[in-house]
Amino acid sequence: MNAKVNKETGLSVDSRHSGGRFFEKDGKPNVRFRGITFLQRFSVYQFMLKIPTWKFLAFIGLTYLVVNLIFATIFFLIGVEQLGGMEQQSYSGKFWEAFFFSAQTLTTVGYGHLYPSSLTANAIASFEALTGLLMFALATGLLYGRFSKPKAFIIYSDNALFAPFKEGYALMFRFAPFKNHFLTNVEVRVTAVLKIPDENGNKKNNFFSLDLELSKANTLSSNWTIVHNITEASPYYQFTRKDFEETETEILIFVTGYDEEFSNNVVSRASYVASEFVYGAKFDMMYEPSENGVSTLLHLNKINSYHAEKLPVDLQP
Amino acid sequence: MNAKVNKETGLSVDSRHSGGRFFEKDGKPNVRFRGITFLQRFSVYQFMLKIPTWKFLAFIGLTYLVVNLIFATIFFLIGVEQLGGMEQQSYSGKFWEAFFFSAQTLTTVGYGHLYPSSLTANAIASFEALTGLLMFALATGLLYGRFSKPKAFIIYSDNALFAPFKEGYALMFRFAPFKNHFLTNVEVRVTAVLKIPDENGNKKNNFFSLDLELSKANTLSSNWTIVHNITEASPYYQFTRKDFEETETEILIFVTGYDEEFSNNVVSRASYVASEFVYGAKFDMMYEPSENGVSTLLHLNKINSYHAEKLPVDLQP
Amino acid sequence: MNAKVNKETGLSVDSRHSGGRFFEKDGKPNVRFRGITFLQRFSVYQFMLKIPTWKFLAFIGLTYLVVNLIFATIFFLIGVEQLGGMEQQSYSGKFWEAFFFSAQTLTTVGYGHLYPSSLTANAIASFEALTGLLMFALATGLLYGRFSKPKAFIIYSDNALFAPFKEGYALMFRFAPFKNHFLTNVEVRVTAVLKIPDENGNKKNNFFSLDLELSKANTLSSNWTIVHNITEASPYYQFTRKDFEETETEILIFVTGYDEEFSNNVVSRASYVASEFVYGAKFDMMYEPSENGVSTLLHLNKINSYHAEKLPVDLQP
Amino acid sequence: MNAKVNKETGLSVDSRHSGGRFFEKDGKPNVRFRGITFLQRFSVYQFMLKIPTWKFLAFIGLTYLVVNLIFATIFFLIGVEQLGGMEQQSYSGKFWEAFFFSAQTLTTVGYGHLYPSSLTANAIASFEALTGLLMFALATGLLYGRFSKPKAFIIYSDNALFAPFKEGYALMFRFAPFKNHFLTNVEVRVTAVLKIPDENGNKKNNFFSLDLELSKANTLSSNWTIVHNITEASPYYQFTRKDFEETETEILIFVTGYDEEFSNNVVSRASYVASEFVYGAKFDMMYEPSENGVSTLLHLNKINSYHAEKLPVDLQP
Repeated sequence: MNAKVNKETGLSVDSRHSGGRFFEKDGKPNVRFRGITFLQRFSVYQFMLKIPTWKFLAFIGLTYLVVNLIFATIFFLIGVEQLGGMEQQSYSGKFWEAFFFSAQTLTTVGYGHLYPSSLTANAIASFEALTGLLMFALATGLLYGRFSKPKAFIIYSDNALFAPFKEGYALMFRFAPFKNHFLTNVEVRVTAVLKIPDENGNKKNNFFSLDLELSKANTLSSNWTIVHNITEASPYYQFTRKDFEETETEILIFVTGYDEEFSNNVVSRASYVASEFVYGAKFDMMYEPSENGVSTLLHLNKINSYHAEKLPVDLQP
Repeated sequence: MNAKVNKETGLSVDSRHSGGRFFEKDGKPNVRFRGITFLQRFSVYQFMLKIPTWKFLAFIGLTYLVVNLIFATIFFLIGVEQLGGMEQQSYSGKFWEAFFFSAQTLTTVGYGHLYPSSLTANAIASFEALTGLLMFALATGLLYGRFSKPKAFIIYSDNALFAPFKEGYALMFRFAPFKNHFLTNVEVRVTAVLKIPDENGNKKNNFFSLDLELSKANTLSSNWTIVHNITEASPYYQFTRKDFEETETEILIFVTGYDEEFSNNVVSRASYVASEFVYGAKFDMMYEPSENGVSTLLHLNKINSYHAEKLPVDLQP
Repeated sequence: MNAKVNKETGLSVDSRHSGGRFFEKDGKPNVRFRGITFLQRFSVYQFMLKIPTWKFLAFIGLTYLVVNLIFATIFFLIGVEQLGGMEQQSYSGKFWEAFFFSAQTLTTVGYGHLYPSSLTANAIASFEALTGLLMFALATGLLYGRFSKPKAFIIYSDNALFAPFKEGYALMFRFAPFKNHFLTNVEVRVTAVLKIPDENGNKKNNFFSLDLELSKANTLSSNWTIVHNITEASPYYQFTRKDFEETETEILIFVTGYDEEFSNNVVSRASYVASEFVYGAKFDMMYEPSENGVSTLLHLNKINSYHAEKLPVDLQP
Repeated sequence: MNAKVNKETGLSVDSRHSGGRFFEKDGKPNVRFRGITFLQRFSVYQFMLKIPTWKFLAFIGLTYLVVNLIFATIFFLIGVEQLGGMEQQSYSGKFWEAFFFSAQTLTTVGYGHLYPSSLTANAIASFEALTGLLMFALATGLLYGRFSKPKAFIIYSDNALFAPFKEGYALMFRFAPFKNHFLTNVEVRVTAVLKIPDENGNKKNNFFSLDLELSKANTLSSNWTIVHNITEASPYYQFTRKDFEETETEILIFVTGYDEEFSNNVVSRASYVASEFVYGAKFDMMYEPSENGVSTLLHLNKINSYHAEKLPVDLQP
């Protein structure tokens, strides 16, 4: 097996101590941090950007509630008679009225039906209004940051195929844009990971950068089938179907490009393990001219569509 | 025809099933997505950034109206007597007063002439003020995002010319900046698409990366004429006027650069089909020194200006 | 004169019709657009980012005044009795009260002492509050955009020197950072422009990319002297002092780098014309160790400091 | 000593006048600016982004206080009777009431219990509300800018080791991500600085770009050990332990990459001086498979963990 050691993964070559697949299906590195406190490894910013929208909104709602409860308690403790315009008679009613005064201050609505009538209450209210402005700066900044965060809108085929190619065969997978976010200056890099026994019989991860027939594109306007020709330079050269079943192997895909809508670079990652490889198959065409012939139709539901096709070289044992 | 297969377009080589021109005149890929629901392929962010300003403002105005109608209905349903300061007597008058109270809350104006007088009304108003802050975070973020979105301010000549060049001739088109947004690190790439019959007589798209005399510039300060010399390496080598009429061909232009005003990279695309080629013509000069000789005048209205000029090699059949 | 034609300027080679210096001293291209309407070539965004702060603030203040005058007029026209809480009796007093009610609405202060008491007034006020939010989104976005706009904080020496270098001499200029904004991945490119008579005696601009001893740096932490060795490959090879006086020539400098404070790329440009060249001079050292020896002091006031130094090759005619 | 002069640092080769270490431990250039006024070299933006959070919040709080004091003074000077709703009788009470009215205006809370009752007071209040909006645009922009500022979350080993490598030995250090911010397109560059006596015996700084076994990575998903093999091309070739003690030397590390969470490029710098080198030692493994074998555990507390290991070549004098 003639293989080039990958000079671009940055993953330690002696990786026999790693566990499971290297990258999850969505390309997220399968690594857990230890030996560091939660707070040190926690990134508030990332957390706020990554959680689902409903959790984010719930988090904001909860914070709004808690901060108002705190200020309501403060107003209650200094004496709610320092707030003018109170109408509720009961203790709980007075507390909630203080709560709503706090909300009116925090959001800077300030109807004024309720108002701070003492200097102390005024001081607290002034501080709360400032707090509100700063808090909502973060909350609304994050909300818009989430909304406008650059993302690569790309779907990948579920499988990577060993398909006929030229005189021999090639490893192929494909991906396509699915929103009108056109990527320019697109670049694809593929790395193969193989667990190969070393001199002591320990399985060690070996990394190989795979040569691609085409790895750069000016524009990703349609689907793109990535082709790794199985030549002598490939780590998968002369691999039989059985070899694939017995070798733990995985390919990692990195796609980078410039998204014109976001005016920013985006990154997309994916990964295929051996069980997601299909031997002797070919992708079906997924586009066609429109009926009136003036544009091209891209059938995204066909991205996983392929048919069996005999490989020119019979490597099935 | 000696041609280099383009390694940079990312477009599938077997493109006999595509329809119409590949890129629209403004460089937008001429592709329609199918087999995916509208919601999956719809990008709210892109939609809000791309629609014309009047539509965007209308959309914001409409949303403002609808949200206030919803909250007005809620206040109406819980009983408008829970709002203090109401003066209208009629049902419709009361509804509109609730509507305006809602607007005052959503925008956090909060005059206070109208105010929530019950705990229930207070709770709804507190929620509405929060809603308003978040909604306006998105609306105002988008408004400024639209305003500050990096764009390439470049105009292209309507035609690409076959003009005399050195001993032979070259394919030329030109572009120029039209606002004082100077681009730096500008790079131009041109791809030709030719529909050539394959062994079965089916017309297939073939892609060729065109060699340019000059493809990179430190600064785009004036007009720039892009020159593709027609040598043996060109896919258009020895094409006659008739060949152009009979071959479906198109050139795609990609311009990238760093815009100092936006502090961001920008991308511009254009495309010329065979009917936009002019054989035997040369662009007219479009700049001259200013009268006092201290600066250069760039006449942007002359960008399409050219005159007939005999090609040194007569290829007209 | 052996010269390499510059493949990177993007400036048309046949530039005999340009006037004055190509780039102003601050590196701004010396080009004026014609044949296009003011509105087409005007960039509001650039204008708002480039004008001095006082003009920007004046512009905002004026807009605030005008918008309030418009809304005050509207309220005046529908009848100021539709605003509650009015105290002024005179016509002008009423107008100004309407004006201030408008201001309170536009800024969403909404004291409520003045308030809309009719449905019509309410509708106008609701619209004005929305207008205010959108207007201030642009105004405050621009204000912060101006404040946080990436800029290259670099100062250049006033002169470029012909200084002894190795066995011969070199063209040198230097620049330095002057704020604690450290640039990384810094790259410098220098282009020379020479007006050379063509076969008909017309002076034409010729562009040459100058070879530099060092053109890339990981970090710009101190001053950096750019050195163009005058070898046979230089367009200035064997230029005498008299040649410089008689030839119209200019060098254009482009510096790009990544600013860690702005988290963005920045660009800086400068230009030296022949009259800013000094023959037979060498820059003085501009840094020294601090007294306690623990850090380096960079004397920015010495950036223009040089002393005469005889060139090893005497080219003075 | 065969050494390649570094073409990428941009630091002047004749650096005998510099003092102390070149880069501080955190990679900040150890340079002080002189000959320029404080205001010229001060960057407000950088200052506001770099100061600790508590100082930033204190700065905002203080500004809020001062601006309100100024406006309170103005209202006091024009006469507090021009504010409606005042309840305090004492001079100081009236001043503080004016102060809180100012705060309610600046934050646009505008309860309205206090309100401007004269045209003069109205004019001042209108101006203050505008001032408040602009000030809070800067304050909240900076707050969110600080929060979302791209940072490289990387920790470095405290020491650089001379460890056995292949037939010889290599200089090694390592770093690792410590938050779930995955970097892509990571690139590492290392520069060595050596103080070497020149012909006159003056110690001069010499810069050398160090060759690395691996300098680029698609993804930084785990720890990465950077390896500089000590070959004849290395400036440290045949350095003995004593040489290191007697030579002032330092290595500078630059790591750049694209952070997907921030959607931006980030830069990280570090530096090791000779006293931080360890001769004859090897890093301990810092990762292992998780117990269930499905992922990799990265023990960040082991980043500094190494054990003594005899170098194959004994250079200890």
